Amino acid sequence: MIIVTKKGVTQDQLDHIRERIESLGLRTHMSRGESRTVIGCLGDESLLEHVPLLSIPGVEAVHQVLKPYKLASREFSPEPTEVPLGDTAIGGNELVVIAGPCSVEPGDMLSSTARHIRAAGARALRGGAFKPRSSPYSFQGMAEDGLKMLADVRSETGLPIVTEVMDTRQVDLVASYADVLQIGARNMQNFSLLTEVGRLRRPVLLKRGMSATLKDLLLAAEYIMSQGNSDVILCERGIRTFTTETRNTFDLAAIPVLKRETHLPVIADPSHAGGRRHLVAPLSYAAIAAGADGLIVEVHPDPETATSDGDQSLDFAEFDAFMDGLRPFVVAVKRGLAARA
Amino acid sequence: MIIVTKKGVTQDQLDHIRERIESLGLRTHMSRGESRTVIGCLGDESLLEHVPLLSIPGVEAVHQVLKPYKLASREFSPEPTEVPLGDTAIGGNELVVIAGPCSVEPGDMLSSTARHIRAAGARALRGGAFKPRSSPYSFQGMAEDGLKMLADVRSETGLPIVTEVMDTRQVDLVASYADVLQIGARNMQNFSLLTEVGRLRRPVLLKRGMSATLKDLLLAAEYIMSQGNSDVILCERGIRTFTTETRNTFDLAAIPVLKRETHLPVIADPSHAGGRRHLVAPLSYAAIAAGADGLIVEVHPDPETATSDGDQSLDFAEFDAFMDGLRPFVVAVKRGLAARA
Amino acid sequence: MIIVTKKGVTQDQLDHIRERIESLGLRTHMSRGESRTVIGCLGDESLLEHVPLLSIPGVEAVHQVLKPYKLASREFSPEPTEVPLGDTAIGGNELVVIAGPCSVEPGDMLSSTARHIRAAGARALRGGAFKPRSSPYSFQGMAEDGLKMLADVRSETGLPIVTEVMDTRQVDLVASYADVLQIGARNMQNFSLLTEVGRLRRPVLLKRGMSATLKDLLLAAEYIMSQGNSDVILCERGIRTFTTETRNTFDLAAIPVLKRETHLPVIADPSHAGGRRHLVAPLSYAAIAAGADGLIVEVHPDPETATSDGDQSLDFAEFDAFMDGLRPFVVAVKRGLAARA
Amino acid sequence: MIIVTKKGVTQDQLDHIRERIESLGLRTHMSRGESRTVIGCLGDESLLEHVPLLSIPGVEAVHQVLKPYKLASREFSPEPTEVPLGDTAIGGNELVVIAGPCSVEPGDMLSSTARHIRAAGARALRGGAFKPRSSPYSFQGMAEDGLKMLADVRSETGLPIVTEVMDTRQVDLVASYADVLQIGARNMQNFSLLTEVGRLRRPVLLKRGMSATLKDLLLAAEYIMSQGNSDVILCERGIRTFTTETRNTFDLAAIPVLKRETHLPVIADPSHAGGRRHLVAPLSYAAIAAGADGLIVEVHPDPETATSDGDQSLDFAEFDAFMDGLRPFVVAVKRGLAARA
Repeated sequence: MIIVTKKGVTQDQLDHIRERIESLGLRTHMSRGESRTVIGCLGDESLLEHVPLLSIPGVEAVHQVLKPYKLASREFSPEPTEVPLGDTAIGGNELVVIAGPCSVEPGDMLSSTARHIRAAGARALRGGAFKPRSSPYSFQGMAEDGLKMLADVRSETGLPIVTEVMDTRQVDLVASYADVLQIGARNMQNFSLLTEVGRLRRPVLLKRGMSATLKDLLLAAEYIMSQGNSDVILCERGIRTFTTETRNTFDLAAIPVLKRETHLPVIADPSHAGGRRHLVAPLSYAAIAAGADGLIVEVHPDPETATSDGDQSLDFAEFDAFMDGLRPFVVAVKRGLAARA
Repeated sequence: MIIVTKKGVTQDQLDHIRERIESLGLRTHMSRGESRTVIGCLGDESLLEHVPLLSIPGVEAVHQVLKPYKLASREFSPEPTEVPLGDTAIGGNELVVIAGPCSVEPGDMLSSTARHIRAAGARALRGGAFKPRSSPYSFQGMAEDGLKMLADVRSETGLPIVTEVMDTRQVDLVASYADVLQIGARNMQNFSLLTEVGRLRRPVLLKRGMSATLKDLLLAAEYIMSQGNSDVILCERGIRTFTTETRNTFDLAAIPVLKRETHLPVIADPSHAGGRRHLVAPLSYAAIAAGADGLIVEVHPDPETATSDGDQSLDFAEFDAFMDGLRPFVVAVKRGLAARA
Repeated sequence: MIIVTKKGVTQDQLDHIRERIESLGLRTHMSRGESRTVIGCLGDESLLEHVPLLSIPGVEAVHQVLKPYKLASREFSPEPTEVPLGDTAIGGNELVVIAGPCSVEPGDMLSSTARHIRAAGARALRGGAFKPRSSPYSFQGMAEDGLKMLADVRSETGLPIVTEVMDTRQVDLVASYADVLQIGARNMQNFSLLTEVGRLRRPVLLKRGMSATLKDLLLAAEYIMSQGNSDVILCERGIRTFTTETRNTFDLAAIPVLKRETHLPVIADPSHAGGRRHLVAPLSYAAIAAGADGLIVEVHPDPETATSDGDQSLDFAEFDAFMDGLRPFVVAVKRGLAARA
Repeated sequence: MIIVTKKGVTQDQLDHIRERIESLGLRTHMSRGESRTVIGCLGDESLLEHVPLLSIPGVEAVHQVLKPYKLASREFSPEPTEVPLGDTAIGGNELVVIAGPCSVEPGDMLSSTARHIRAAGARALRGGAFKPRSSPYSFQGMAEDGLKMLADVRSETGLPIVTEVMDTRQVDLVASYADVLQIGARNMQNFSLLTEVGRLRRPVLLKRGMSATLKDLLLAAEYIMSQGNSDVILCERGIRTFTTETRNTFDLAAIPVLKRETHLPVIADPSHAGGRRHLVAPLSYAAIAAGADGLIVEVHPDPETATSDGDQSLDFAEFDAFMDGLRPFVVAVKRGLAARA
């Protein structure tokens, strides 16, 4: 931590600041400039986290030196983490595609979608049984019935299941069905939920919140990891900005920045980022080019009748074309992609 | 709902759109312009909520006509709602000040703060026992011990208690101690939690999320209200924007816009909005001038040693000056403010 | 400037950094932490402004210590600047209201508006002769004919004129008619224009850009002041964020932050910030409460027929009520307001 | 234009709205819903642009149907525009790279950079002679001396010159040297400047403003085109959002959205978007994958000594590696790239 003092700071104030820092077990280093003094705090910076340094008389600004996340940082673990997913892993050489409907629905839709995406080269099935919807009057998902359908389709197709958990009380239930638990953007700072999934030994797909910085996202991952669960997959899905032409603003640069800062795998969700079907392909190609380890894409046999997110879902023919379209970019980044059946 | 078609839409596409809308039980009204056709959908607009209208061939844009919230809207309930709080109510003529520390801490701090703020004219005590912190390594609150301390201080001072609930599993526990349950900004779209507090008959203070539009905020209130709990207090606490000079951007205009859109009371949190002690007073004066029904302010006897948010907490002398400073503005808006003891 | 090195920085890299800084005439101060070294740069920080410090091998982060603006800072001039405006000044005790139509239009409108606002207590007339419009197909203003009308109305009413200049080639022309030159939000970083108005000895009303930080705004003021013109009035008029319920997001906290950082007067533009007529009054009351030195408000005798910004313009009766509504808040902040005629 | 009325609108208000619209030469079409009436306005929508519809009593909301830009829209010109650039064109099959230093500097730097980038496959030289700098105390560029150096280097290397114009008074001067005039992000809504370059018959590179929507950008292009100059190249260079980990937020989705909306070519500026050298390559690869027609990249032989933007400039070896790195992505999108010399 570096403390910059106000112009005209008094010697008494400087002494008080120094004593305060040193009383916490850190050492201090004073650099007197012409109008301000800079105080370096040496030692375990985390001891200063609770301390309202700006409230100490004479303090003008405080700059953090160390990163607040530890387990998630690349400095802690220089090798990339590979999170197992069925027969493959996310974070290794293969570009992994997860696909499926926004919501699980009654009938054959889920099964036919799973069979189709598997044939096209997808490696896991997504589908929501518990749905976070802005309006209480929108479809809220099929709950445990939806989880059972997901498990049935896994038995049928062998595809591992990625599904969302929204409530601490549902963590064990969802974990009893799911291969990967998804934490949605709106729950990225639901710290109770993060702690609870951290207690499992099951991979977690953590979506970036709509107004989360990358530091916030990595601290959310740290919540999970500090409970012992290090299989965290990060997901860029767009942030909220002033733009209105897309549903969210896809923060493409988050991918290379995260790949540099953390050893965790990073995937992209082009469906939510763009919000429109015709944007899924170009955003996906770009994500691969920027270094993403995978994609999670919404697919529905008849988007016009989907119970949610139909505007951004690909139909089967579009998904086939999409997967074909990915291959040249996968080649360009020298990665692999599952073959079509 | 209004549907605008693409240039060059075919008659078949128009027929398909009309059939799709009418099959859901709405009537349609076509206005053919020179290059586009506009289709008005008449009837229960909520029937269209699931329908991915943009996915229907020939559709260019969709405009919503009705507001998606009902119970929260002023059209539903033209008279302002007054939410009871101890001997007073929020949403009536009195400008209500809620004050207290960010976090409950061991020792005498809570009790002395409660006595002090009551004497200065505050009407309720705030204090967090469960704390949502960005880092898992920061102080997480005293949990039930903190709730007990709050209840003890209520017994001592008569001040009702406002405290945060973060987890669906804690709702009953927190409700057994608290007079008002607070939903923090990070949980504003934790829909399970909203639903759970909606089942109580206890007032809820709902903070606006950092990237929530006012429509999002009113839909979050609607989640609570649709469960039967209509005692919801809305709180503007700043949004996340590109600005860096304040902790958040205080969206002052949210206050008059909300007062016009909803019958629910609206308060402001100047401590989190500004993030710096010297901003608490001007932001509060402005909130009152813009029509806020109350304020929630952080106070700590020794901010320099507070376990959280010390940089934005007022000490006792500052709080006294702050309360004195409010009075002229309360007079200007022709409201009341509790007298100093 | 403070330089934080990367973990594992080598001694050669440290030596290179130190030599680079010292070669520019500054002294360095090294604080070695457990994993990183912090290098304080002492002396004239502006010498480092061109230097891409992050490009030097081994550098992780750079923190600025001194503020980049000088003439605009309160440290440079602790006393508030009062900018003369007709018989009064902005930045003194009086709360100054500037009012008038968005655009000058042919006919009697300007004259009748001027007479009306003067009678209600306004101290200057605003009105655009050159209009920055998003679309090339919108009304672009009356140009010099509009300036002449403004001057005629000044002769008639005695009200000083505030009008916008958009082009370096028009500066002398506009200055030959206007009492205050306005720089619009879209031109806040039109550095040629800032430099040109800096060469005048005429007050400048500088509006904050839609995505300008307060540092950006103060640096824009510094451009003007560094040319010798220190009569700069800053204006908060809303920033662009994700919110859609108002035209812009009124950054109320900018007012107290600016009043602390700079000696220049600060006014608010509630018309552009809110974009809707019913928001003009509450935003203005709030701005006064937060310490604004004045307001600039759009008024038109018949907003429904205004050539621009009719949705946010007050008509005469609304303006009268607005001025009456201001008085209690002006009293609350112990300032003066011109009496009604 | 579609007008939605307020709940409880009266027949008199409806009649007034209809008369107002029809008096302007449009026809109206009324759809009465249960609680609101929707009024479609048929005919030349541009006639309504000046009209403050929200100010008419009884009006709740207004939705635009037609796009406000015409010449820039793909509907106007379905075929992509190819803007000539030396021996090639932007907007055709070739992926065009423009490279060079941020600022022209005295000495050999410009010439050596031009020779190097040409050998590596760049097709035009960028370099600023007039520099828009946030601080008046930063290096402001070499002005006409810089333009002369650019022209000399063009004579030497044959590379066309891309350079910024900031001031209407400099348009003729800059045009007498430059092959492409660049309008910087801060001047994207400097409408006088847009109009002035619109009068030339010289290509214009128009950078997106930091808070500009794509509609704003296309309207800025429309300003240029409506003067007769249709050779406009659009450039995505990052927008300002709450993120802090990159200099700006690269809005990747803007590329496919613009390619769909307009026939104008679209390029990306990865240097300004990311602000850090290591982000230039991944952002560029992504831009190509998303459909960009070209890139503009900062290169400097010794970024550590560059007078501006050194932190985001590539050195020669990095640029060579960068160009090699582009090829697989250019192949993936089936475009061409100039060969290395």
